[in-house]
Amino acid sequence: MIRLFTPHGLSAGARLSLEADQARYLVAVMRRAVGDEVALFNGRDGEWRATLAAVAKRAVQLQVHERTRPQDGGPDLDLVAAVVKRSRLETIVEKAAELGARRVRLALTARTNAETVRIPRLQAIAMEAAEQTGRLDVPQILEPVRLSALLDGWEAGRRLMFCDESGEAPPALQALGGQPPGSWAILIGPEGGFSPEEQARLRALRYSTPVGLGPRILRADTAAISALTLWQAVLGDGRP
Amino acid sequence: MIRLFTPHGLSAGARLSLEADQARYLVAVMRRAVGDEVALFNGRDGEWRATLAAVAKRAVQLQVHERTRPQDGGPDLDLVAAVVKRSRLETIVEKAAELGARRVRLALTARTNAETVRIPRLQAIAMEAAEQTGRLDVPQILEPVRLSALLDGWEAGRRLMFCDESGEAPPALQALGGQPPGSWAILIGPEGGFSPEEQARLRALRYSTPVGLGPRILRADTAAISALTLWQAVLGDGRP
Repeated sequence: MIRLFTPHGLSAGARLSLEADQARYLVAVMRRAVGDEVALFNGRDGEWRATLAAVAKRAVQLQVHERTRPQDGGPDLDLVAAVVKRSRLETIVEKAAELGARRVRLALTARTNAETVRIPRLQAIAMEAAEQTGRLDVPQILEPVRLSALLDGWEAGRRLMFCDESGEAPPALQALGGQPPGSWAILIGPEGGFSPEEQARLRALRYSTPVGLGPRILRADTAAISALTLWQAVLGDGRP
Repeated sequence: MIRLFTPHGLSAGARLSLEADQARYLVAVMRRAVGDEVALFNGRDGEWRATLAAVAKRAVQLQVHERTRPQDGGPDLDLVAAVVKRSRLETIVEKAAELGARRVRLALTARTNAETVRIPRLQAIAMEAAEQTGRLDVPQILEPVRLSALLDGWEAGRRLMFCDESGEAPPALQALGGQPPGSWAILIGPEGGFSPEEQARLRALRYSTPVGLGPRILRADTAAISALTLWQAVLGDGRP
């Protein structure tokens, strides 16, 4: 079953038009025709069954039928990722969507190399991954912000899983065990690691839990996926 | 410090020539010159400090000095991955190297699409990732084999973490907790999942532990990385 994100409201009997890209995908790529079913979600109203009601070359009208799943936001998890090279950043965003992060905040750190970040492209990757993975919302991708500014404006009550590549932090399973669920963020550094000043600040934060990700040096995208996996397994919706 | 894999034996005072690719990388890309240091490993003799002793356009001679780390094989972990599209298969191999798998065995399953697999290219990706990640060996990448044949010839004593996307298996942390370490393999299916017959056989194997990887549908590369992460955290060299 093809799943599509739509910005429109969803309710029984509603009729809506798809964006040109989605219409082309459905008709030209996936060869869907009038009467065929799709699933729709918009991040607010749950998942709905719909059928193709009218098909033109670049326009598709959908008829919305009944709700098949109620809305469920998933855990309140941010991924804060230092900006890295484009292909690895795209992997990070795709995998954050698959592994249930609610937002991806991009950070500029002392050792971040200058990279052009195209938020609309990253947002499109997040949307496609959300459609594939079965979740009912699309993670929001936020413009890069200096790490120091991000910490200065840290939201009260949100805990931080600080992925510390120094080798001094305890393994993630041990460090996260016994911690409360609730609002969290995972922080992943750039390929060159955090500067000593950044490390000192991150370790001293009251809301920070430094964790190790094993004895090998991980690329930024691997570290992000491993950290998301371990957090979901211990504190998120993958926990027993 | 640049790390390089070499097939040659390593001992104090040895002198060796690099392959043309590595020589070009060191000199043309990384601008190394006579006297500069590199680290060498060969999967058998540990890690050694070496210096560039002679440099020509496509040839570099290295002088080997002293051993800086003893050889350490890491956990005895195979990744058995169904063949998927090239870019995702390359990600799987790169991440298997970063996350400490000793071998990657490629499997052809009922729902595997025909794909051309270029083992030398995958082996080169594994080598580069091993150099980056700090491990002392390079995972071996094996030619694709039918899953049924692979199970028929299963090595006695090797346990199997079967990543079961049916939603019926317990979460990985719970399923792996209390299992013995030792020789293991992780099995990841193709994008279309295992067939019902394959699932039934995999669940019935004495040496198989079915595990779930959370409530979302994961792409094959994400599933592989999550599974490797969880196995290392519970039973491998990332455990507390």
